[in-house]
Amino acid sequence: MNGADALIAGLVDGGVDTCFANPGTTELQLVAALDRSDAVRSVLCLAEGVCSGAADGYARIARKPAMTLLHLGPGFANSLANLHNAKRAASPVVTVIGDHATWHLAADAPLTSDIESLAAPMSVTVTRVADAAHAYLDGCSAAGASLFAASTGPATVIVPQDVCWTEVADRPAGTSLTWGPDWPDNLDHAGGPARLAAVHEALRSAHRPVLLLGGAHVDAEAQRWAAAVAEKFGGRALVAGLGPRHDRGAELPTLEVVGYFPEHARAAFADADLVVLCGTRAPVTFFGYPDDVSTVIGDDVRRVELCSTSAHLAGWLEQLAGVAEVAMAPLTSDVGAPQLPSNSPITAATLGAVLAVLTPEGAIVVNEALSNAGCMAPLAHGAMHIELSATTGGAIGNGLPCALGAAIAAPDRPVIAVQADGSAAYSLQALWSMAREQCNVTIILLSNRRYAILDVEMKRAGTQLRSQKLTDLGDPQIDWVALAAGFSVPGISVNDTDSLADALRYGLATPGPYLIEAAMP
Amino acid sequence: MNGADALIAGLVDGGVDTCFANPGTTELQLVAALDRSDAVRSVLCLAEGVCSGAADGYARIARKPAMTLLHLGPGFANSLANLHNAKRAASPVVTVIGDHATWHLAADAPLTSDIESLAAPMSVTVTRVADAAHAYLDGCSAAGASLFAASTGPATVIVPQDVCWTEVADRPAGTSLTWGPDWPDNLDHAGGPARLAAVHEALRSAHRPVLLLGGAHVDAEAQRWAAAVAEKFGGRALVAGLGPRHDRGAELPTLEVVGYFPEHARAAFADADLVVLCGTRAPVTFFGYPDDVSTVIGDDVRRVELCSTSAHLAGWLEQLAGVAEVAMAPLTSDVGAPQLPSNSPITAATLGAVLAVLTPEGAIVVNEALSNAGCMAPLAHGAMHIELSATTGGAIGNGLPCALGAAIAAPDRPVIAVQADGSAAYSLQALWSMAREQCNVTIILLSNRRYAILDVEMKRAGTQLRSQKLTDLGDPQIDWVALAAGFSVPGISVNDTDSLADALRYGLATPGPYLIEAAMP
Repeated sequence: MNGADALIAGLVDGGVDTCFANPGTTELQLVAALDRSDAVRSVLCLAEGVCSGAADGYARIARKPAMTLLHLGPGFANSLANLHNAKRAASPVVTVIGDHATWHLAADAPLTSDIESLAAPMSVTVTRVADAAHAYLDGCSAAGASLFAASTGPATVIVPQDVCWTEVADRPAGTSLTWGPDWPDNLDHAGGPARLAAVHEALRSAHRPVLLLGGAHVDAEAQRWAAAVAEKFGGRALVAGLGPRHDRGAELPTLEVVGYFPEHARAAFADADLVVLCGTRAPVTFFGYPDDVSTVIGDDVRRVELCSTSAHLAGWLEQLAGVAEVAMAPLTSDVGAPQLPSNSPITAATLGAVLAVLTPEGAIVVNEALSNAGCMAPLAHGAMHIELSATTGGAIGNGLPCALGAAIAAPDRPVIAVQADGSAAYSLQALWSMAREQCNVTIILLSNRRYAILDVEMKRAGTQLRSQKLTDLGDPQIDWVALAAGFSVPGISVNDTDSLADALRYGLATPGPYLIEAAMP
Repeated sequence: MNGADALIAGLVDGGVDTCFANPGTTELQLVAALDRSDAVRSVLCLAEGVCSGAADGYARIARKPAMTLLHLGPGFANSLANLHNAKRAASPVVTVIGDHATWHLAADAPLTSDIESLAAPMSVTVTRVADAAHAYLDGCSAAGASLFAASTGPATVIVPQDVCWTEVADRPAGTSLTWGPDWPDNLDHAGGPARLAAVHEALRSAHRPVLLLGGAHVDAEAQRWAAAVAEKFGGRALVAGLGPRHDRGAELPTLEVVGYFPEHARAAFADADLVVLCGTRAPVTFFGYPDDVSTVIGDDVRRVELCSTSAHLAGWLEQLAGVAEVAMAPLTSDVGAPQLPSNSPITAATLGAVLAVLTPEGAIVVNEALSNAGCMAPLAHGAMHIELSATTGGAIGNGLPCALGAAIAAPDRPVIAVQADGSAAYSLQALWSMAREQCNVTIILLSNRRYAILDVEMKRAGTQLRSQKLTDLGDPQIDWVALAAGFSVPGISVNDTDSLADALRYGLATPGPYLIEAAMP
């Protein structure tokens, strides 16, 4: 085997089974090594931001590290925006970048750049493979770092081309790493009993406690334990906004999601005297505003941490419930069945109603609805599903890639991508990979032909523009059905809820991707 | 005025008149300032890589700094690949990035990242505007830095939102900078006479000298002076490959372009005993190969530098010709008129013949043909034109953005984008801005449905793959006419040279953009 084979072997032993790739000449040996390996499924993407976003979506659903293969500094740079979202989602993404041969770097050839400087902001670790003999362990370690670093998150591996083409002995004996299918608890349990006692004591002395749930593990069990603990202490359980993964269903206890704008976020904590941070840090405002501050929770509100972002949230909350001597909150059964709206224009509210009726049990809903995010609020009776917020780091353009990755991770689950138009335009190339891999993704493309969030922020700032040149997307209008067809994804344009419901039913019933352009008023 | 107005005023006084923008919330004040200014034309782009590539193309043609406006670290990151090309092209691109309010950075809000670390590899200078009082001068200086730094190239300005919204007095008196429409000589003339004498002496003592021309100023005059000097000393003049701008025409003296692969590049210098570097550095191989070295010119070949990448090349060569006492080489008039190929499949050779017949006088041809770059060799009689190599830094995906920027810079010149399919897919969003601005760009989209350069490199490496999963783009086939239609660009698919010629004539005669999908065998 050569260094490329050894690196791939190390990654495989570290848990990698899928690679989202956009390779170039410096990755030839890695392409050949992937071609020789039967342990990694390779998915070609037309743009690097699709690779990193898909790896993020894959990791959130598969709960194991996902790999990308990218070309030198500039190719890697194209992946950074969605890698930023992956970092904020604490997703274990392993980026492998082929670099020039070691001896060729000094020549400052055209494609040379400082890859480490590009990688540092969006990575939890950055490794340069020094020689072929280290390639196997560096591969293992990168996969491990994505899971076992202080926070889970992106690990970046730079491998020079001469390291890849150098022959090495077979992998070192006895170094193979394995772990189970779930993210580990990241050693948080080490301080567990003391932490549990401190949180319990804080809850007992609080009048209006809030349990704030966040991170990649806000599953049904976590929510039911949190609701039970909150009820016992006369408080509330909330879910942080823009979370990487959030189990949903009308039968679950009602946990409000913290709002986006400062006044909405602060209102959620207005009466709290204690906030228990469960897998998330104290929230801050998304942006700064004149004469405002960054904080959402008042300085006089006590805060205690139950567990870190990477921890097994339900496990921690179950232990807390044990200390507090409460049983898991029951599922609710008397939820009224939602109704389809009568033939109506498509708005956040009517779309929400359609989704509440038609979202299937077990679905994955990828949310990049942005200014129409209100559509996520209504929930279907009897259809427990997973919601992934695409823009955990606020970098738009992650929705379609994230849906691609989720569909590769869970081919038996239907995926619904609720997708704003402006953000879809950053990474529409994901459609091609969906068609190539015949992913079961139904895309609801919300066409409002605006960067509408900018309109909202302009209004909030009291600013009036003479021209809409920098916020309007309607001149010319984007024909999303044509774009989808260009990438071999069939689609339809609809402008009322009846047609939308029919199209959604069709998309969910038909194998492969399907795009529904939902024209909004 | 506020800090945002002051920054824009400084940029305008520094020579900026065009902004390629993809703004977000932290750029609201800058959007409003651009809206209030009549001095800057704003062009909205759907993806940030389109902004940086278009600014690069604009700067190469307009010969003045072009501005982009991008959103925080992740939005900026999306621009880096094409900013890398701009840096390697020595193009004066000024990137303005809105950042969080100064006091909000410590909160580590979701969109926070280390923007300086991202910017450093692809910038000649990086500035963070400290307060509104400095905004005007920082704007001037950034535009100046893009022109006057040791090398011209990208200048990056980070401006926090609170700096933008803070009121300031009008611009400081007496600080307005101006410069002419052309790039300056960058002080190289300071050491001019001694340098000229040294080069002249080297030429006189050489047996087989080569003048190697490169950089952004390989215009007709430079080539004619270089050809005359080379002839006088029994040598040759060559043009470096992947240059940012290169005047072409069959009437010009024949200057071979240095080839891409190491053996081709080395062959161009095989018999040289002196290389005079004229606006370029000594060439190196694009990639490193096993048992090879980076250098192209033998270690025993003497090399002397005439002038830097940013220098006024024709001026230096005219002075050298003066010292050498030679007159400018004449234009050739006995060039045979090229012939259209009889109805043939579309290959690099037949496309080249079509281009030689139909390229109009004064056209700008943007070359991202990659594995079909041979189509650029034939030249039309009587049609002096400009060729821009999109991938000066080897980062593919710059062709369509570069054509957009060139068309905005020179609305009266026809632009022909000769564009490979794989690289077009990185930044197809440029089509929308071409339609929005009604740019006169005719795109010849070379559809070979492969990452063909990878096939070539695989063959060179003697590697055989079991699967074509990571190099094949044909499953599914991309329908470029449908994609163009989705962005309101009309188009046609052709598969022989007669239809190609008809379509090219139509595209050139019709205002606005037009896409010709040229299906290759």
